[in-house]
Amino acid sequence: MPRYALRIEYHGAAFAGWQRQSGQRSVQEAVEAALSRLDPGVTAIAAAGRTDAGVHASGQVAHCDLARAWEPFRLMEALNSHLRPDLVAVTAAAQVPEDFHARFSARHRRYLYRIAARRAPPVLAGGLVWHVRRPLAVASMQAAALHLIGHHDFSTFRSSICQSASPVKTLDRLDIEEVAGAHGPEIHFHVAARSFLHNQVRSFVGTLVQVGAGSWTPEDVKAALAARDRAACGPVAPPQGLMLVEVGYAPDPFA
Amino acid sequence: MPRYALRIEYHGAAFAGWQRQSGQRSVQEAVEAALSRLDPGVTAIAAAGRTDAGVHASGQVAHCDLARAWEPFRLMEALNSHLRPDLVAVTAAAQVPEDFHARFSARHRRYLYRIAARRAPPVLAGGLVWHVRRPLAVASMQAAALHLIGHHDFSTFRSSICQSASPVKTLDRLDIEEVAGAHGPEIHFHVAARSFLHNQVRSFVGTLVQVGAGSWTPEDVKAALAARDRAACGPVAPPQGLMLVEVGYAPDPFA
Repeated sequence: MPRYALRIEYHGAAFAGWQRQSGQRSVQEAVEAALSRLDPGVTAIAAAGRTDAGVHASGQVAHCDLARAWEPFRLMEALNSHLRPDLVAVTAAAQVPEDFHARFSARHRRYLYRIAARRAPPVLAGGLVWHVRRPLAVASMQAAALHLIGHHDFSTFRSSICQSASPVKTLDRLDIEEVAGAHGPEIHFHVAARSFLHNQVRSFVGTLVQVGAGSWTPEDVKAALAARDRAACGPVAPPQGLMLVEVGYAPDPFA
Repeated sequence: MPRYALRIEYHGAAFAGWQRQSGQRSVQEAVEAALSRLDPGVTAIAAAGRTDAGVHASGQVAHCDLARAWEPFRLMEALNSHLRPDLVAVTAAAQVPEDFHARFSARHRRYLYRIAARRAPPVLAGGLVWHVRRPLAVASMQAAALHLIGHHDFSTFRSSICQSASPVKTLDRLDIEEVAGAHGPEIHFHVAARSFLHNQVRSFVGTLVQVGAGSWTPEDVKAALAARDRAACGPVAPPQGLMLVEVGYAPDPFA
């Protein structure tokens, strides 16, 4: 059976997360329902990142096996016609080797976390930002973030329900920038690693915001990491600011 | 009575345009209702640009006279507490001289028009883009736009209900760029002038998209302008891609 990789975009507010669960609308269920309109025998699909309820994606990747061969562009178009008007869309499709696995073949994952740091409610941001009413010192947050980059035991920044075999991961990137944005200034956290622990990015951001607000020093973040203790983490940032923007493979199936 | 300038952000889908009209929710009505909670005697407010139904603003400016003096930050906070959860917010407030007029004192107005040029529905764009399913040639659109910049009779790009005294205006800027965007590539039209005719920006964009799609040449746009005839205009672009991003004054009341 030919295997296809799908790049998927969705608005987290419309779903109870990626993963199928009884009685709630999941992204997985929506995409599988669209696939079953094309191929009644389609089985469960696997995704690179099982995003939590409320978390968005512009670059989620999943794979599926179909009974017959599809021209990738026509597959994308057919799926989008069945997904409409749900807030989920397939932005690319590609045939991949039979040993491609959206989750296990992934070389890196990149997330974006957006904050609107201002007093007024961000009415144009479409539910894609965390509204923080205090000014945040970006340079302090960046100084703190340097302590997190690299190969560490991230137990402090791991939710208690995390199913990862090990808390040791390599964080490749944690850059923080102020951006003009199409409708007002925002603070963007760019976070990349081969893989992440459950709630790791939101735990980073919530903790770094303590630094940006002046409640913590960058050294407090270093100490929190060294504690290897969930209790040492700052508050976990809310899901609506988080977006899975890219999953990397070699070779890139969508190139 | 002290006069205040308010910078106002709103999502156009939530309102039937800026201007108060019976039986429909307008931004003006929402802001006046919030003001009347602070000052029951407040009179009608005036805005720099009376945006149409569906058009957004990140930098609309209006002015109002209040019975008593307000510290501007507290005025902004009080208005936002009364506006919530409507998709309208006051992002800045300032006391201004009594001869300041949001509409007549404005030196320039700047609009942004956003297009998502791709096949898949833009589910993360929050209703802030025009979805054009064809690829668009930005260089051709920019070449055509050069014919529009400057002092011209813009009768071709003026709606039949425009109330402006003259169709002659000076277009200061019409730049078109491809941007990465927080969630996928977009085409942005940056348009600035002292003042605009009714539907002028949407008439420009709809016409330029004909060029980007290859249906018109840049010279066709030059000829359309020279025709000074509404019938020579391309299709008018839909409102949801348009946003009033800045109104300029000298001095800047919010500086």
